[in-house]
Order: sequence, then C-alpha cells, then structure tokens
Amino acid sequence: MDRTVSCYDCGETYTAAERKRCDCGEPLWFDVDPDGFEWPDAGSVDDMWRYADALPVSDSAGIAPGGTPLFRANRLDDYAGCSLSLKNEGQSPTGSFKDRGSAVGIRGTIESGAEWVGTVSHGNMALSTSAYAASAGLECAVFVPADTPPERLELIARHDPHVFRVDGDYGRLYSDTLSLDVGVNFVNSDTPLRVAGQKTVAYEILEQLAPAVPDAISLPVSSGGQASAIWKALRDLARAGVIDEVPRLFLCQAAACDPIATADRNGDTEVTPVTPAETIAVSIANSEPPSGTHALTAARDTGGAVVSVSDEEIRDATDRIATRAGLSVEPSSAVAVAGVRQLCQRGALEASDDVVAILTGSGYKERYGTDVRSRTIGVDDIAGALTSVVDG
Amino acid sequence: MDRTVSCYDCGETYTAAERKRCDCGEPLWFDVDPDGFEWPDAGSVDDMWRYADALPVSDSAGIAPGGTPLFRANRLDDYAGCSLSLKNEGQSPTGSFKDRGSAVGIRGTIESGAEWVGTVSHGNMALSTSAYAASAGLECAVFVPADTPPERLELIARHDPHVFRVDGDYGRLYSDTLSLDVGVNFVNSDTPLRVAGQKTVAYEILEQLAPAVPDAISLPVSSGGQASAIWKALRDLARAGVIDEVPRLFLCQAAACDPIATADRNGDTEVTPVTPAETIAVSIANSEPPSGTHALTAARDTGGAVVSVSDEEIRDATDRIATRAGLSVEPSSAVAVAGVRQLCQRGALEASDDVVAILTGSGYKERYGTDVRSRTIGVDDIAGALTSVVDG
Repeated sequence: MDRTVSCYDCGETYTAAERKRCDCGEPLWFDVDPDGFEWPDAGSVDDMWRYADALPVSDSAGIAPGGTPLFRANRLDDYAGCSLSLKNEGQSPTGSFKDRGSAVGIRGTIESGAEWVGTVSHGNMALSTSAYAASAGLECAVFVPADTPPERLELIARHDPHVFRVDGDYGRLYSDTLSLDVGVNFVNSDTPLRVAGQKTVAYEILEQLAPAVPDAISLPVSSGGQASAIWKALRDLARAGVIDEVPRLFLCQAAACDPIATADRNGDTEVTPVTPAETIAVSIANSEPPSGTHALTAARDTGGAVVSVSDEEIRDATDRIATRAGLSVEPSSAVAVAGVRQLCQRGALEASDDVVAILTGSGYKERYGTDVRSRTIGVDDIAGALTSVVDG
Repeated sequence: MDRTVSCYDCGETYTAAERKRCDCGEPLWFDVDPDGFEWPDAGSVDDMWRYADALPVSDSAGIAPGGTPLFRANRLDDYAGCSLSLKNEGQSPTGSFKDRGSAVGIRGTIESGAEWVGTVSHGNMALSTSAYAASAGLECAVFVPADTPPERLELIARHDPHVFRVDGDYGRLYSDTLSLDVGVNFVNSDTPLRVAGQKTVAYEILEQLAPAVPDAISLPVSSGGQASAIWKALRDLARAGVIDEVPRLFLCQAAACDPIATADRNGDTEVTPVTPAETIAVSIANSEPPSGTHALTAARDTGGAVVSVSDEEIRDATDRIATRAGLSVEPSSAVAVAGVRQLCQRGALEASDDVVAILTGSGYKERYGTDVRSRTIGVDDIAGALTSVVDG
C-alpha cells in the first residue's frame, strides 16, 4: 500500500495509504509500469489474478473473479446494427462486474493491516464486498440507502455483514465514508483499489480478442468508476504497445437519470447532479456520480460518447438479450446493448463495426415482471397439446 | 446422431437416433474412444467445448458452459472435516450445472435436423434448456409440474419457450415425453445427449487438479443423470490412462426425499419410489429418479455411498458456504457440503482426504428467508454508528 496513486486530471501524485481522492476533487488511480506489461500467455483467461503484475496487490486464494466469457452474439447483430460481442460479467461469483474490484479491495485491505472493509452501495457492490470479505475472514460494514428493498438486503445478509440503512443524501454518504478514520477501509465504487480491479475486464476483452482490437466498447455508467477503470486499462495497453489503437468508449445511462449524458450533450466539461426520475435500471441510477467528470473525459478522449436510453429501449434490449442470446441480464446491463442500437441507428457506429457490450450483472437477483404465457394440461394430454403448438 | 449409445447395465447398444433408454429400462449413454482422449492442453479451462472430441456433437457458437472455477475452500475445512475444494457450477450462464447438458442437447437437436427441443423439469433444467434454445434459434417446449411457483416460471419465460404446466404424475410425464413422436427432441435429465454434456464437469475437475486426483467427489443427486455422467467421465479417464484411481463418488439427498439413499441403506440393488415430504432442497426432490439405480451403482462401484441430510443440516451448510466461502448457493447445492460433513463425522471420510464438492446452482434464483440484521441511521451518524460496532 506504499504504491503511488495519481490524478488523471491534474497529474498530482500521492501514496495509496494517504489518499483516495485528489486535492482537486477528482478520483485517483494506481499507475502501471508500461515495460512490465505483457499478456501472461496467449489465449485463455482463467481468472483475473493472471494480471496480478498490473495490480497493486498480490493474488489471493478463495473465490476469484474474472475469466468471464466473451462471445459473438450473431443473433443480435440485426437488432444492434453492427457486429456485436457480449462480455458476460453476470457469470462472476456474485453475479456482477463488482467482484473484480471487491477482490482487489479486500486483498488491499488485508495487506494494509485493517480488519474491516466498508462500502456504500445500492446493491451489487454491497453484495460483492460482503461476499469477498466473508471469504477472506474480514469484518464488513455496508451502508445502503434506507429505502433499499428487503429482497436485495436478503441477498447481502447471507454473507453476514454489518448493514447500515442510511437516511439522507447518498452523495454525501459516499464522500463522508472516504474520510472516516475509524479503522475501516472503504472500497467505494471509484476508490483506487476498486478501480484497479475493475480494469481487468478490459485486459480480458483485449486478450480474448487478440490480435483483433474491437472498434468500440459499450457499457453502462453509474458512478463512473468502471468507465474510468476501462479507460485506464486501455491506456495501460496502448502505452505498453500491446494495442495500437484504443477502442472508442460508449457509456450508457437510463434517460431518467443521466447526468453524464446530459453534460456530454450540453458540451459541458464537468458533470453536475440531476434530479432523478424512476427507472427500471435501478443499479445505475446515480444522480450525482463521483467519477462523472472522469467518465465524461474517458468517452470524449477515446472518440466515444455518453448515450441516454429510455426505459422502453432498456426493456426491449433486456428481452432481446434473453430471447436471442440466451442470457438473463439485469435491465441496468441491457442499457449497454440499447445504447449500441441507438448509436447504430443514428450513424455514430456502423454496421461493419466490431462492438463489445459489457453485460455487467446477472438478471437472477431481481424479478421484472416478464409475462408468463403458459397453459395447464393433464398428463394424458401432452402429445395432443404439444402437437397443436408444433404444427400450429 | 448415428453414434452408438450403450447400456451401462446389460451392455446392449443402439444408435443414438433410435433410442433414449435401453430395453431393460435403464438409461443409455454415449461411448468415448479411450485412445482419442487426452487433455486438450495443460492447465486452463475455458469452456466445455475444449472436450468436443469426447462429445457426440460438434462445438457451437454463442453462450457456452464450462470453465467454472474450482478452488480450495480453506475456511470451510474445519466445518467439513477434511480438505475441501468447491466446484462452482452456479457461475454457468444460467446459474446451474444443467447448462452443460443443455448445450450438447441443443447442438445434438440441431444436428439431428429437428427444430424443436423439449424438456421436463421443476426449474433449473427448464430455464437452461429455454436459454440455450433461444441462443440457437430453436423452438422450445418445457413441461413443468402444474404447481411450479410463478417466480420460477418468470425466469423461464424470459427466454420465451412454450410452457406447459402439467397436472398428474411427474414420473409418467418424464417417461412419456421420451417416446413422443411429434418432432420434438426431448433432452430430459438422464437422456444420452444431456448425460454426455454433464460429463464435462468431471473432466474439468480432474484437469484443474491435475496431476493430483481428489480422493472423493460429493454432489447432490436427484434424477441420477449427473451422477451417471460423472461416473462415466471418470471411467473414460481411467480407461484412457489419464487417471490411475477413480475418486469415490458420494451422492447426497435431502432426507425428506431420499429414494436412492434409502436403497443404499437397505442394501437394495434397485431404487424404488418413496413418498416425499417437504424440503428446502426443492431442486433435488425427485421421489422416483429415472437414473436412481444407475446412480446407486455409481456410488457403490467407486467405493462411495449415498447420504441423506436433514433440512437443518442443509440450512446450516448453505449458511456456512455464504459466510466462510463467500458464495450464495441454492440449498439443493449445499447438500453436497452437508453430506461431506456428515461423512467425516461418521468416519467414512478422513481429515486428510481431498474432497471436491460440486455446487450445482446459484442461490440468486430464490429467496430463502435469511434474517436481515440491520440498523437505520441518519447520514450525520455514520462515524458514531460504525465506531460502535468496530470497537464493540
């Protein structure tokens, strides 16, 4: 934990033990030695500890994230409007992309000598942090909004963390926890340890496709931590000479809560809070994203953009991913595919583009009211009932 | 589909297109050429198509099962009573081990020229078959018991199969569908295509641990199809000279519905139906297992056994897996760990034994009423509230 963290924006550096945010207010990230970077070996991708040399912690036993599948989703090409591949982070141990950062965060906490880890989250990150803390024998504190639904808390509670339901401003809760000095290491969504772990999804995508490089990567954006991590990983790879060109980053938000897309549309250089409306993309409804400006910079720097999609587009994409690619994803993940479709429709992406959409989380943690079309029959009627639909 | 399938019991052979069960009533399986078998390459395990040479179908694009993590669960050793490793099939695309058989079943259906696939299931297999059919563009019919809970149907319906809720005897439904001649290829839990796909979990375990060979493998047993598949895989590997000794197979059931364990206890050579009681291990409550006798034979042949565990033991194991290994599993999966604990307690397994427990399914598809211990605080009180538990 005596490694250096730096500010992408003003360039200031600190030691990791010292700080989680820059004096200028922006988040910090760990640097990687460009000469020390190469693909561990060709082809296969077991888990993210294969990238341990590019991480600020040593590897760890127990449950390990990474090694999620990347596959061509041919049957979605027409819908998306381009050549679409899917990176399915829903197959992580706790069902979301958050596991990568949790694994590094827990390991970094242990290496720092702390016995407690904490996080501030609406759901996936609280679950992931609790699970990794449990697997490592660390005490864990999670702070969630007071109105977090009981079915989400039930999943978190299985790993037996200390759960605090907090009344009051979420943005303030997020930032206040980072300056607490009570022996708890907070691994929030854009803290350097988490961002370092989240980078590995981009390493994996590039390694899984190597020597090809995708034209674009599309992902949902909420706090901006994941976008920042992927941008950093692509810069690592470019600096190390592993890739010549950096894929364009397209960041996708639900229109009901889209502060980063709003800033992009308006040509602003900073992201400011919005008043959120209801959306089915609950996991990404962050009206005051702590790495929002960072994410906006990442999209622009790579020639990408930040996209807003309606709940109707999100529902439709969720449905298409299930019926044409066979994956059940949370609506917050489907925004990455809905965004690609919109970008292709308006010409920002072309039919010949190779695009990777990151599906950030499994659809099994929530119900979203799919219509069940079924008929009830007797066991004597199976042949007749089946024939009627097969021939029908 | 002109490959040969054979009966493990009487030795009769047929072509795969011709039959799914032997004249003697036992299930059939595909044979593997022992000379054609070797580890594809050392070390890493991407997805199950790496074993295509040992499968009766060619490989396939799209979502692919396999490559699930296997890891030492040191923090569960004391609880289990031995050196425990976990193979987490919950990280499959649809969250259960069933994906392996579905992938082969769907591919085999396509290769046979059929446009419809069908299955009979309480949940996981219906979900998995529907998802893989969707990803391949096949029509799919699933037959579920009429009283299947709506929350389970909602997950299945996302992939838009034809759902039939059937009133009447489940065992009869299962067997009647296998002889239907209406252009639908039924890939039920112990049909040869499914069993061929399910074998790959054992190939993976042995490859991931190579050159070590575990002393025992523990898994839940329901229809017996998975037990049969693993036994077959171990025999394939032994015949090919890849392993010298076959691990002991321990098959675990919920005491409330344990026909195979009952037969084992009673020294019977055949499994007969039992009258089931309620259990939280809903996915494995099969009172009339079609491959029950086959599974019993597998356990005895390898020097293993069939174990019954109470719902209390299952609940406890589910909880320990979440709080000490960081994984949320369905109670039906936790029986594999509960079984190991019981076997160690009664001396059938020893503290020095290396045991792999297969966690067959993710815990995210159902709620099982975990107590949520939380406190509600204001955003001004976070430092004080946190300090009180850290110091407390």
